[in-house]
Amino acid sequence: MKQIDVVLTPAMLPLYQIEGKVVVVIDILRATSSICVAFNTGVQKILPVSTPEECATYQYKGFVCAAERDGMVVDGFDIGNSPFSYMDENLKGRNIALTTTNGTYAIEHARHAAIVVIGSFLNLQAICTWLMKQNNDVILLCAGWKNKFNLEDTLFAGAVCCHLKKEFSLCSDASIAASDLFMLAKDNLYGYILKSSHAHRFKKLNIERDIEFCLQQSIFTEIPVLSGDYLIKMELPQRG
Amino acid sequence: MKQIDVVLTPAMLPLYQIEGKVVVVIDILRATSSICVAFNTGVQKILPVSTPEECATYQYKGFVCAAERDGMVVDGFDIGNSPFSYMDENLKGRNIALTTTNGTYAIEHARHAAIVVIGSFLNLQAICTWLMKQNNDVILLCAGWKNKFNLEDTLFAGAVCCHLKKEFSLCSDASIAASDLFMLAKDNLYGYILKSSHAHRFKKLNIERDIEFCLQQSIFTEIPVLSGDYLIKMELPQRG
Repeated sequence: MKQIDVVLTPAMLPLYQIEGKVVVVIDILRATSSICVAFNTGVQKILPVSTPEECATYQYKGFVCAAERDGMVVDGFDIGNSPFSYMDENLKGRNIALTTTNGTYAIEHARHAAIVVIGSFLNLQAICTWLMKQNNDVILLCAGWKNKFNLEDTLFAGAVCCHLKKEFSLCSDASIAASDLFMLAKDNLYGYILKSSHAHRFKKLNIERDIEFCLQQSIFTEIPVLSGDYLIKMELPQRG
Repeated sequence: MKQIDVVLTPAMLPLYQIEGKVVVVIDILRATSSICVAFNTGVQKILPVSTPEECATYQYKGFVCAAERDGMVVDGFDIGNSPFSYMDENLKGRNIALTTTNGTYAIEHARHAAIVVIGSFLNLQAICTWLMKQNNDVILLCAGWKNKFNLEDTLFAGAVCCHLKKEFSLCSDASIAASDLFMLAKDNLYGYILKSSHAHRFKKLNIERDIEFCLQQSIFTEIPVLSGDYLIKMELPQRG
């Protein structure tokens, strides 16, 4: 039986073998949610980069440059990682260079996997349906907060585990804990997330609206996938 | 307000500042439980060491040598880390050199804290009562399984958080998750732990009896504390 495992933060990724596996990168608040929004808007490609400095160099190559640190837009950039910034129709067909506190860091560390995809509550059902059809074992990689554990990414990992428990074996304590926390929180995800340290941090930034948006389930069908250095929209077979 | 935080595995410890704090090392199945048993039996000192080879050298210095790897007694040693091995009256007044897969590794990495104590369900109430009287912030360090997350250590950390939530601020998502998992599991800890990957591993080793024993709450009052290189029994003030 195929296995699904949860890596609670990138700090623990070196303990796992990711070669030959599918890695789902998860940064619910807000990088991977915003990436899903971007492809729904019609962005062509997203280049995850490590630093704001590197990101800025792409301005002269025609990219839209987006940079977030500690929840805020980095000085000198127009866009950070609020999902609402990625709904702008002017982004259609454009390329984006993106750096965020946790999300792009996690993507960077997942590069050696067979396939790297981007998960969020926004494309939950699409991700699960696609994972069911894969033959590889799956690693759900929570981006966390600066390598520490966070609740919202763990809850999403738990949601995926719950959806896939018939098709996959949940082979670790981390996947059991994530599933149980999701079951505990699922009837009021927003209320539960408000307990988290991240939400307190966000409250100061006035982005509760972002949190509510990012907790909507399965409103998009796009699956962002890493292709070389770029994230692109996965081409899914059309329904008969 | 004093803060309490949970470090889910030693792999994440470098992200935390432990200087000036109390660290509670937690390896429920079975090292820290067995250490509590040993001091209840009347052992004088326990020397945590890194390897079975190092451990064996203490045989010639009059120590009882105990070594466990992957749940089993290491070849050539009489004792591993089953709690029942530490109930032997012949251990009274003796010194023990001990190496285990996870527990002694976690103790080693906690050395720079202001105070390092040993926690288990067996001395839960004593640990909590003592922590309440301390002025330091507290780190609950789960030993995990080979640096990965495990359920039983997290549940114990959650139990401590639940006991101390009036006196301490739970400052992280890890402490919230641990508390909620403990609340979920507390009415049937044994049943819940049987879901864990560790329990499956243990089932093969026929040590369900150890698990049941280690989940008993507050049957001992001894608090093992690191003093120099040795664990000793903390001298607690006598009651009025």
